Amino acid sequence: MNGWLKIVGLGPGAEAMITPEVSAALSDATDVVGYVPYVNRVAPRSGLVRHGSDNREEIRRAEQALKLALEGHRVVVVSSGDPGVFAMASAVFEALEAGDAAWRTLDIQVLPGISAMLAASARAGAPLGHDFCCINLSDNLKPWALIEKRLRLAVEADFAMAFYNPRSKSRPVGFERTLEVLREACEPERLIIFARAVSTPEESIRVTALKDATPEMADMRTLVIVGSRQTRLIDRDGEPLVYTPRSAS
Amino acid sequence: MNGWLKIVGLGPGAEAMITPEVSAALSDATDVVGYVPYVNRVAPRSGLVRHGSDNREEIRRAEQALKLALEGHRVVVVSSGDPGVFAMASAVFEALEAGDAAWRTLDIQVLPGISAMLAASARAGAPLGHDFCCINLSDNLKPWALIEKRLRLAVEADFAMAFYNPRSKSRPVGFERTLEVLREACEPERLIIFARAVSTPEESIRVTALKDATPEMADMRTLVIVGSRQTRLIDRDGEPLVYTPRSAS
Repeated sequence: MNGWLKIVGLGPGAEAMITPEVSAALSDATDVVGYVPYVNRVAPRSGLVRHGSDNREEIRRAEQALKLALEGHRVVVVSSGDPGVFAMASAVFEALEAGDAAWRTLDIQVLPGISAMLAASARAGAPLGHDFCCINLSDNLKPWALIEKRLRLAVEADFAMAFYNPRSKSRPVGFERTLEVLREACEPERLIIFARAVSTPEESIRVTALKDATPEMADMRTLVIVGSRQTRLIDRDGEPLVYTPRSAS
Repeated sequence: MNGWLKIVGLGPGAEAMITPEVSAALSDATDVVGYVPYVNRVAPRSGLVRHGSDNREEIRRAEQALKLALEGHRVVVVSSGDPGVFAMASAVFEALEAGDAAWRTLDIQVLPGISAMLAASARAGAPLGHDFCCINLSDNLKPWALIEKRLRLAVEADFAMAFYNPRSKSRPVGFERTLEVLREACEPERLIIFARAVSTPEESIRVTALKDATPEMADMRTLVIVGSRQTRLIDRDGEPLVYTPRSAS
């Protein structure tokens, strides 16, 4: 039996956002490897071993997946959202580059998923409809000064901005600083969207002006989108729509 | 019968990348509205009217969709990739904001799709695995000076960059200028990926160094990804892998 490794995205939460090619990979797999809450999204079945591991164990998890594939297993590494956006694909390639040369002979594929950023944007309207950037606000793997530099340059470029990992118990102050940097650089009415647990039963979408945003509006399940100077709000029956026009001057 | 409007993404081309919620919307629709080649991706069936229109008719197309929904039709507006990334969602909201007040009472949803950027990144490895930006290189709706400013700031921020609409017959010089700006600002070995028609029979992925990139490597079906300073290439059996590590200093 020839092993393989597929690094897949489960989308933001809803079954209906998992692509058919990802579902097929999960059906063919002998092993699923990933962070416990994501592995738990894959239903148990006979012939499938589910290997859940803790957060911050990405490299060990990647090595485990590569070893299993080399032994002939059909291995799916799961991430939520898209595997290539602040998720397991880069971790697997870091492990691959540093590890056993035999791993370079493996059949490896990345199967994209609906990223949290795209799902959040869709729920709010189309805030990423013009040029934008995407920044991981966690300073676990980069210095805070680099994050702050990127924030200031992104505002200067007038990108809309999608923020991953805005805030956690172990990093309570980063998002507060982010809001301070944005308040220095942007107008007070700049639109900001807090999209929590999109497409799950806990989903909530909150749209506010930057001047009214507070750190507590975000947690680790929140994707934050800050509009550009062009981003607009349409009032209507029900939730407002937020979108960024296609033109800019 | 109550009409509704769903603005959906068909993904980059392969059926296997269309989410189940988008497939369900297409099954329930009475009308599909979009650019001809995208409308043609939806199979004809009895009870479904397919309204194909030309490129650059986005606002008229959006108005047509809103009118049909208000008349009680179940309308799906199709884009390739994701509808919120340089696609129809913003056009529909521009039309909605400027148009008939009754349109604001409509049931409107955006259903995300696998964007060209995510599909291209997956095929190449994980070049968007760290902070990145996404820029539409067409100057149809914004001045070239703004594109150039954003390119320079994105390089300064050391974002990986995904470029939509790099080059067309009507805009033959923009991408040449883009390469010039990048060559001034980046090292010659900077990695650049030309991902054409991903997930279709015409798919091709080419990875090169910036110094060897030429304008002819891109056309309107190409998504271009430029790595950050950190982006790496792994040689192996078969296609090389390109990825951006999770850490930066």
